[in-house]
Amino acid sequence: MPRLIVQKYGGSSVADADRVRRVAQRVRSSLAPDTQLVVVVSALGDTTDALLSLAHQVAHDPPGREMDMLLATGEQVSIALLAMALWDLGVPAVSLTGAQAGIHTDARHRRASIVRVDTRRIQRELARGRVVVVAGFQGRSRGETTTLGRGGSDLTAVALAHALGAERCEICSDVAGVYTADPRIVPEARKLRRIGYEEMLELAALGAQVLQRSSVAYAERHGVRIEARSTFVDEPGTIIEGSDAAVAHGRRPRPVTGLALSRHVARLAAVEIPDRPGVAAALFRVLGDEGIDVDMIVQSVGQDGKNVIAFTVDEEQGERAHRLVAPVAAGLGGRMAGPPVPMAKVSAVGMGMRGAPALAAAMFEALARAKINIEGITTSEIRISVLVAPDQADAALRALHRAFRLDEAEVDVEAEGARVPS
Amino acid sequence: MPRLIVQKYGGSSVADADRVRRVAQRVRSSLAPDTQLVVVVSALGDTTDALLSLAHQVAHDPPGREMDMLLATGEQVSIALLAMALWDLGVPAVSLTGAQAGIHTDARHRRASIVRVDTRRIQRELARGRVVVVAGFQGRSRGETTTLGRGGSDLTAVALAHALGAERCEICSDVAGVYTADPRIVPEARKLRRIGYEEMLELAALGAQVLQRSSVAYAERHGVRIEARSTFVDEPGTIIEGSDAAVAHGRRPRPVTGLALSRHVARLAAVEIPDRPGVAAALFRVLGDEGIDVDMIVQSVGQDGKNVIAFTVDEEQGERAHRLVAPVAAGLGGRMAGPPVPMAKVSAVGMGMRGAPALAAAMFEALARAKINIEGITTSEIRISVLVAPDQADAALRALHRAFRLDEAEVDVEAEGARVPS
Repeated sequence: MPRLIVQKYGGSSVADADRVRRVAQRVRSSLAPDTQLVVVVSALGDTTDALLSLAHQVAHDPPGREMDMLLATGEQVSIALLAMALWDLGVPAVSLTGAQAGIHTDARHRRASIVRVDTRRIQRELARGRVVVVAGFQGRSRGETTTLGRGGSDLTAVALAHALGAERCEICSDVAGVYTADPRIVPEARKLRRIGYEEMLELAALGAQVLQRSSVAYAERHGVRIEARSTFVDEPGTIIEGSDAAVAHGRRPRPVTGLALSRHVARLAAVEIPDRPGVAAALFRVLGDEGIDVDMIVQSVGQDGKNVIAFTVDEEQGERAHRLVAPVAAGLGGRMAGPPVPMAKVSAVGMGMRGAPALAAAMFEALARAKINIEGITTSEIRISVLVAPDQADAALRALHRAFRLDEAEVDVEAEGARVPS
Repeated sequence: MPRLIVQKYGGSSVADADRVRRVAQRVRSSLAPDTQLVVVVSALGDTTDALLSLAHQVAHDPPGREMDMLLATGEQVSIALLAMALWDLGVPAVSLTGAQAGIHTDARHRRASIVRVDTRRIQRELARGRVVVVAGFQGRSRGETTTLGRGGSDLTAVALAHALGAERCEICSDVAGVYTADPRIVPEARKLRRIGYEEMLELAALGAQVLQRSSVAYAERHGVRIEARSTFVDEPGTIIEGSDAAVAHGRRPRPVTGLALSRHVARLAAVEIPDRPGVAAALFRVLGDEGIDVDMIVQSVGQDGKNVIAFTVDEEQGERAHRLVAPVAAGLGGRMAGPPVPMAKVSAVGMGMRGAPALAAAMFEALARAKINIEGITTSEIRISVLVAPDQADAALRALHRAFRLDEAEVDVEAEGARVPS
C-alpha cells in the first residue's frame, strides 16, 4: 500500500499565478514512488473578501444558498489553476470541487458541517496515479453547494485525511508552525516540535492564526495527525497530535507549552449588584441575545453583600456592550463602574498545568518582578489568562517567556527536572 | 398554462454590481402573473478573459478539463449575484449551474455540444414561483464540467427555450437589435423588425455582433423564436424566425435585408499556377493544417493555361498564410503575386436575392457610381460579398444602403413593387 499524505495550502500560499506555480513545485517535490497526494486549496488571496463585497453591493441580505454558490467559485478557481500548473510540470493531476470529492454536508448554508465523505472518486483518481486537488471550504447537500464557514479549508483537509486514512495532514501556510509565543514580540520564541490537541485548541481560541479551532477539534475527535508548516520554506513544522503520542515519542510535556496574546479586549464592570440568584443571568442574557461574545467573567463579593461583576468583550464591541448592560445593572439597583477599559490578555497554555498549582503563583510573581499589574485573572484546566494594560502586553509576554524558560529546547523524559520557576 | 420566456443577458449587461442590479430590475419588470421566466447570464464583463490570462500564467497548454473547471466559475458568479439582486427586490429566485439546470453535453471540453436538456429541476423551481437563473456557456458530461465555447451563453438560452417550449428567447445586450447596416457608419441604418434565420446566419458569419452563429443554427433547427433586443432600453428588438413566419406576419421579404462589413481582411494571390487537378487542394491544405481559415476563394484562368488563385484570410493571419503558401506555389511552378493586400469586405444579405440575378448588377453599378473599385467578388445563395480598398469601405456601405433603399420602412405584401434599382 502506498502511503497517503493530505496537504492543505491557504489563500496566501496561492495568492497569484506565481505562487500557484511555486506550490505546484512544492507538491511535485513531495511526490515519491510510494506516496499518494491529496492537495486541498483555499481561494486565491483575498478572493473570498472580494466576492463578499460584490454580494453586498447587489443585495442587503443575500440568501445563504446564493452566497454559497458565489463563494464556492473562489476555491474552484484555485484548484483548476493548481491542477494546470501541476500538468505543466509533468505531474498528472485532477481538480475536484467539494461535491465531486464526495464531501457531503448538512444543509446549513455558510456554516455547514461535514456529515460524510464518500472517497470513491478520490480513490479512483489516486489509483490512476494522479495528484488529486480538492476545493477546500465547500461541500454539497442534496445537489446544492454548501460552504463550511471561515477557515473551512483546514477542516476539509483534516476530514479528508481521516476518511482516506492518511498518514498525516500537512497544513501549509506562511506561518512555519506553532511557536512558544509570537516571534514578532518575543525574539527568542521557539517553534514547537509537537503540541497536543487540547493545547492547540486553547491557543487557537486565543487567536493563534496557525489553525482553525474547528479543524483541531475534528482532528482530536478522529486522531488525525496534523503538521503545521511553511509552504515555501523546507523545514519541519509543528506536529499536532494526542498528548499520549507526544509522550510516546519520548517527550515529556513541560508545564507551559506556549503563550498567547490578545490585544484588543475591553473590560467592563458592573458594581453594587445585589448578591442573589439570577443577577448574572440577567446581565449576560442581553449580550448573548445581541450576539456579543463574553470572554472572561469575574464575580467578587464587595461590602454590604453587594457584588462586583467584571467581564471582557472584544474591544470593538465594548461601547455596545456597555449600552446594553448599563440599564440592566441599573434595574438591579447597581451601576457600571465606568466606560469600557482597553486591556490586553496574556495567556499561558500547557498540558503540564494540570495539577501544578505552583504555576499560577510563578506566573504572577514573574509579572510582579517585571512591575506589571494584573487587572484580572481567569483559568481553565490547562490555561491561565491575565489582563494587563495594553502598553505592558509585550513586556508581559517576554517576562513570562523567560520565566517559563520557553526559549530552551524541549525536555526529554529522561532529563526530567524542576522546570517551574519557584 | 402560464407562458414562459427565456431571457439571456450578456457579459456587458452584467459587467459590475450596478448593472447586475439594473438587470434584476429589468427581470422584475418582465414578470407578470401569467409569465414564468428563465434567465441565462454570461460571466461578468471581461471575467472570462481574466481567467484565461490566469490560466496561461500558470501553464503553457492547460488541459481542457481544467480550463472548463476554471472558466465555469465566471458564470457561477453572475448567476449567484443576479439571484441575490432579485431576492433583494422581493423576487423569489434561484441560481442553477449548467449541471444543476440539466444541460447535458458531450465530453469535448471547451467546445462541447448540448446533447440533452433535462428540465425537471427548472420545472420544479418554476412551479415554486421562482425566477430560474441559469449559468450560460456551461454544462456537464458524466459529472464533469464542460463549456460550449465562445458565445455559448446564447446557445444555452436557445436550447433551454426549445426544451422548455418557451414562447420566445430574448437575447439582451447593448445592441438593440439587427440593423440594416452598422449605424456607426451608416447614420440612416434602420433596426429590422424581423429577419429570417438564414439571413441572420449569413450576417452572423460576416461578423455582426448581435448573435452567435451556432445559436442561430440551433434556433433554426428547432424553430425557436429569438428576439435580439437592448438590455436597458425598453423598446422592441428584432425578431429572428423562419422566413415563412415573416411572410405570415404580412411582410414580404425585400431583396436585400441588411449589409455587413468586415474590415480586416488580407487578400493573397498565387499566379502562374498550372491548370490541373489538385493544385487548389495543395495550396489550401497547408493553411487548413495550420488552423488558418480561408474565406473567399477566386480562381481564374490566365493566359497559357496558367491559373490565378486569389483568396482572403483574416488580416492578422496574412503574413503567416503568405509564408505557408509561397513555397507550395513555387513547388507548383508558380509564385505569389506579392505580399498580402489589406482589404475590406462589404456584403449584402437577403432572402429576396434568391432568383434575382439583377441584384448583383445593381450592386456593382451602385459601387461604380460611387467610384469604388471592386477587387474581388463571391456569392452565396442569399449573399453577395465584394472586396474594396479599406479606405473606401464606409463609402461602399453607405452607397449600397442608399441603392437598396434600406432606410425605408419594411414593405407590406400589398405594397409590392420594384424595389431593385434598375
